[in-house]
Amino acid sequence: MAVPSTSTNDLYIGIMSGTSLDGIDVALARFSNQVEFVAHNAYPFSSEVRDLLYHIATTQQIDLDLFVRSHFLLARLYADAVNDTLKKNSIAHKDIRAIGLHGQTVRHLPTIEKITSDSAPIGATFQLGSGAAVAALTGIDTVSDFRSGDIALGGEGAPLVPMFDRVFLGSDDTTRIVLNIGGISNITVIAPTSSSMPVIAYDTGPGNMIIDELTRRYFHQAYDDNGEIASKAITNDQLLSEMLSHPYFQQLPPKSTGRELFGSQFLTKITTAIDSGVISATDAIRTATELTARSIANEILPYQSQYSQSSDLIISGGGVYNNFLIHTLKELLPKCKIIRSDEFGIPSQAKEAIAFAFFAKAFLEKNIIHQPSTTGASEKIILGSLSYGKQ
Amino acid sequence: MAVPSTSTNDLYIGIMSGTSLDGIDVALARFSNQVEFVAHNAYPFSSEVRDLLYHIATTQQIDLDLFVRSHFLLARLYADAVNDTLKKNSIAHKDIRAIGLHGQTVRHLPTIEKITSDSAPIGATFQLGSGAAVAALTGIDTVSDFRSGDIALGGEGAPLVPMFDRVFLGSDDTTRIVLNIGGISNITVIAPTSSSMPVIAYDTGPGNMIIDELTRRYFHQAYDDNGEIASKAITNDQLLSEMLSHPYFQQLPPKSTGRELFGSQFLTKITTAIDSGVISATDAIRTATELTARSIANEILPYQSQYSQSSDLIISGGGVYNNFLIHTLKELLPKCKIIRSDEFGIPSQAKEAIAFAFFAKAFLEKNIIHQPSTTGASEKIILGSLSYGKQ
Repeated sequence: MAVPSTSTNDLYIGIMSGTSLDGIDVALARFSNQVEFVAHNAYPFSSEVRDLLYHIATTQQIDLDLFVRSHFLLARLYADAVNDTLKKNSIAHKDIRAIGLHGQTVRHLPTIEKITSDSAPIGATFQLGSGAAVAALTGIDTVSDFRSGDIALGGEGAPLVPMFDRVFLGSDDTTRIVLNIGGISNITVIAPTSSSMPVIAYDTGPGNMIIDELTRRYFHQAYDDNGEIASKAITNDQLLSEMLSHPYFQQLPPKSTGRELFGSQFLTKITTAIDSGVISATDAIRTATELTARSIANEILPYQSQYSQSSDLIISGGGVYNNFLIHTLKELLPKCKIIRSDEFGIPSQAKEAIAFAFFAKAFLEKNIIHQPSTTGASEKIILGSLSYGKQ
Repeated sequence: MAVPSTSTNDLYIGIMSGTSLDGIDVALARFSNQVEFVAHNAYPFSSEVRDLLYHIATTQQIDLDLFVRSHFLLARLYADAVNDTLKKNSIAHKDIRAIGLHGQTVRHLPTIEKITSDSAPIGATFQLGSGAAVAALTGIDTVSDFRSGDIALGGEGAPLVPMFDRVFLGSDDTTRIVLNIGGISNITVIAPTSSSMPVIAYDTGPGNMIIDELTRRYFHQAYDDNGEIASKAITNDQLLSEMLSHPYFQQLPPKSTGRELFGSQFLTKITTAIDSGVISATDAIRTATELTARSIANEILPYQSQYSQSSDLIISGGGVYNNFLIHTLKELLPKCKIIRSDEFGIPSQAKEAIAFAFFAKAFLEKNIIHQPSTTGASEKIILGSLSYGKQ
């Protein structure tokens, strides 16, 4: 006699689509005092959808009909990705307790500004991909819009993943530095639990964003595979030091950044240099890779001397597959033991999606994992907004 | 000895700001098997904020930074309005169970369309005023974004207020027609409970939107006070019948409309007629008033013959203060007993805000009041998204 199947309903789905605009990551996981990773699928955007999102993320004046429809189109693509992941893993919708949906950031404007003369200055952020629509289309409870509450309270609205890192990657006796190299790079510094220092976390600067955009434009490749191009080229020291002198790298945390700064300002600087013959495209990619590595290392070094002799550097994100980038990072940080998050049961490519799956669980359990110390918000709140699926 | 105050926590707040862009309505109410109205306050937008919202609602290409910041600015204004209402009524934040937030509709696009050649056609809607930000700024649980789930399921995303009308305004033996005259007019037809006919509800067409815009442009008044201007003028029958021949008025329900059609297409037709000397501004206002009255009456007449000899017409919205409009409506609908919603304990001006307060309660109680029969959605769901306030 077959054992009747029972719904444990303790599985969570996380959906992430990052600033690199490459596509949708769907992760399936359970959470106890550790992460039980179940599955991960990546769904690349079609070139047409990618172009649409790039247009919205980088153009000042947008057709608002198109924008609003994109909010629902992306929800549909998220829902399709969820449905496909469940099918591939033979998991029923009812076995999913909730979805945690990051959405696609198209504007992140934490700096407060007045937009009418008679009103208070305000910051803002917007993630495309309606949570209510994802809940309706999947039939699964969906928690979305994790950044807005923090922004409304004067916070940077970022970074959020450290709230996951602190719970699952901290250590009793070692400083753990968690580095995610996506379009943007960010670090979480988790001092040994015994030190009772607050977690520090922020965006260090560019991750793969500039490198990817250069390989796309000049080599018609989505990224610099294994860092092959960079490894055979020469760094342009003048361009590198000019870029490293940007105020963002001097600014004290908490700080966060996005496509506005690195995807546009920095990129234009580099492509102008290439197009006017000052630097070759290969050397530009090497220089951009050095920029990513050095801006990360410069942020990590002070914490090492502050907290401990050595520390673990836990890496994740698409950047871990750029061997040359990781090699450069190792040379710049000799005291760090570099470990992929995979060794903690968290596949690097799926880490951010898993974090949002966990944030959905935290919302439903009213577990306040918000860390205003990392975002600068004035109060601790429960982040996210819940839309119900099928009852 | 003073009796210690206890928090009953059964009060709900509803926030409405309609397509007429006049400002924010905040209502406080309790709900049992009837509505216990507590308070209502109206907060007009400053002219600068009104101009900003009008710009966003009516212009095709929008600065997306401005749009995203407006989402947070409006949340701030909503939160200020809530805080002021609580202060004026000496009610503590902790006594409010939740806020139901409609937001400011700036696009309502229920008609499905493809925006990339490789994706499914989708409808869309967007209400400005972040629910997550309102929850963070008031510290009160906030349910918002009530239309998106319905739109995602192929519905019109409107009208929603009938779901409130059905619960609180139905009758055992009389057909009740509930008419709200805001910027847009909508009706809910509630057949006698004994008939077990489903509720029918939809937008009939323009409410005050065209009239208000004409008085604003040509008389520098926010609205036609008591219908004074219209009452002294003459209807232009040709213009009226031309407008009444628009396909929207022939279309079968469910149907919904917004500023796109009446605030722009119709208005341009009328102002062109005025500016070219075909019609005087006063006659234009009379004609617009007749258009509102007739397009409403034309929709109500068939239901009367269908269901019962006579029926109650329960009216609400800013339009009830336009005596001439209501007088015209009476003449067109001699068999209707016209009653203001105030007689049911629901002040006409506060009715929509009260409905959204009730929708917040329905969300928290997982009470599925969604009526796909009125919106055309493919499934019944719980409408709205919940953001938590202070814990």
